[in-house]
Amino acid sequence: MATYRLDIKYDGRGFSGWAVQPGKRTVQGELEEALEKVLGEPTRLTVAGRTDAGVHALGQVAGFATERPVPRSLRRALNSLTGPDLAVPAVTEVAEGFDARRDARSRRYRYRLDTAPAPNPFEYRRTLHWPHRFDAELADESARLLRGVHDFTAFTPTDTRHQHFDRTVLDAGWGRESEHVLAFEVEADAFLRGMVRALVGTILEVAAERRTLADFERLLGGASRREAGDSMSPYGLYLLRVAYPDATAGPPGHS
Amino acid sequence: MATYRLDIKYDGRGFSGWAVQPGKRTVQGELEEALEKVLGEPTRLTVAGRTDAGVHALGQVAGFATERPVPRSLRRALNSLTGPDLAVPAVTEVAEGFDARRDARSRRYRYRLDTAPAPNPFEYRRTLHWPHRFDAELADESARLLRGVHDFTAFTPTDTRHQHFDRTVLDAGWGRESEHVLAFEVEADAFLRGMVRALVGTILEVAAERRTLADFERLLGGASRREAGDSMSPYGLYLLRVAYPDATAGPPGHS
Repeated sequence: MATYRLDIKYDGRGFSGWAVQPGKRTVQGELEEALEKVLGEPTRLTVAGRTDAGVHALGQVAGFATERPVPRSLRRALNSLTGPDLAVPAVTEVAEGFDARRDARSRRYRYRLDTAPAPNPFEYRRTLHWPHRFDAELADESARLLRGVHDFTAFTPTDTRHQHFDRTVLDAGWGRESEHVLAFEVEADAFLRGMVRALVGTILEVAAERRTLADFERLLGGASRREAGDSMSPYGLYLLRVAYPDATAGPPGHS
Repeated sequence: MATYRLDIKYDGRGFSGWAVQPGKRTVQGELEEALEKVLGEPTRLTVAGRTDAGVHALGQVAGFATERPVPRSLRRALNSLTGPDLAVPAVTEVAEGFDARRDARSRRYRYRLDTAPAPNPFEYRRTLHWPHRFDAELADESARLLRGVHDFTAFTPTDTRHQHFDRTVLDAGWGRESEHVLAFEVEADAFLRGMVRALVGTILEVAAERRTLADFERLLGGASRREAGDSMSPYGLYLLRVAYPDATAGPPGHS
């Protein structure tokens, strides 16, 4: 039995998300189909982040185990069997038992806003166009409030399979990518479904002075979904990277 | 009669080029259709660069004249009537008689190469993936040879409507956009059809040591098309900006 880690990038615009769905193009579906062609048997992937439809990934991680012989050219084979909007920059053999989801210590996401007055054709479905009031100090302060352990019940759909709603935010903050593009980054041990997009929607209300910092802080103590802000577009969201204990998964992924 | 200049950006992937073609989506077609809706009569655009199918533009310029009343919100109207991969960042009223093609003093193009070993899903059809031998000094030297007046007959299809083949290259050189992305920029008074893509194909042969600098220099004195290198993909090419005499076209375009 040999176990492999895949480092994966994709432009989410062409996919109905990570998870296999009948009749739809998904990242998991396309990769598992390619693996089956290469290995000659159905092969199931574990994954660090089950991204929703439209969400992008720069540093997704998946894993699989197989008893079949693996060609030396597995990386090349996978890249030739998948679409041009999906790439596997690295294939690493790792210790037996590796599970991309369970072993991940943290995930880091980026949310990109284009604040230019007019939308940029080259950022279509790659940023959220947001030519609205945005107080950078209030946004920064909101990010600071996020750090630490909180109850994120207000930031995931009510109809949920999650059983525990506490998550630990290790880092959160706003930066500037270019003249008009702002980026919010947040890293946590794990995320609830839809959590980053609901957090961004709520922080944007604070930054527009339509909600107070005190109210945002209150929501982080646990509240119902309808009390928090809207969920923002998936197209602004990128899974940036996933961290593993060194012993579990070998060298970290490539850029 | 009022005359207007339009500054235009587009992601070329969704267009069959600039020029109107029956049954195809083109930049000119989409803009003229929008203008007709706004002004209530067919309106013909002049243009600085008739880009081919797949070629992008960051700083295309077009112009039109009309006797119809123009709404104050013309810029907004055009942006709402065109697709998300096309934008009109600026609409400027200019002196009567402005012709975007005839009045242009120079055009500047960029050609983008992604030299990473594996293609980047976020650069699909935005760069040419070029993980091949590339001697930067030879590429730089080729660019230096380009400057000045040359006979570019070897760099445009034989079946041509052009009557004169001399063009003046004002600037040409290679730069680095990011770790893996190289960019060739060239500015000239005007370009022959397909000229930048044929020049890039030929320079890449020089940079791969499959053609000598002396041979490239010889081609710039006039030669047949088959003697030069292949035409490279349109998807790496961007019309960057167009320069006008200040008196003709008012303030330069926006970014």
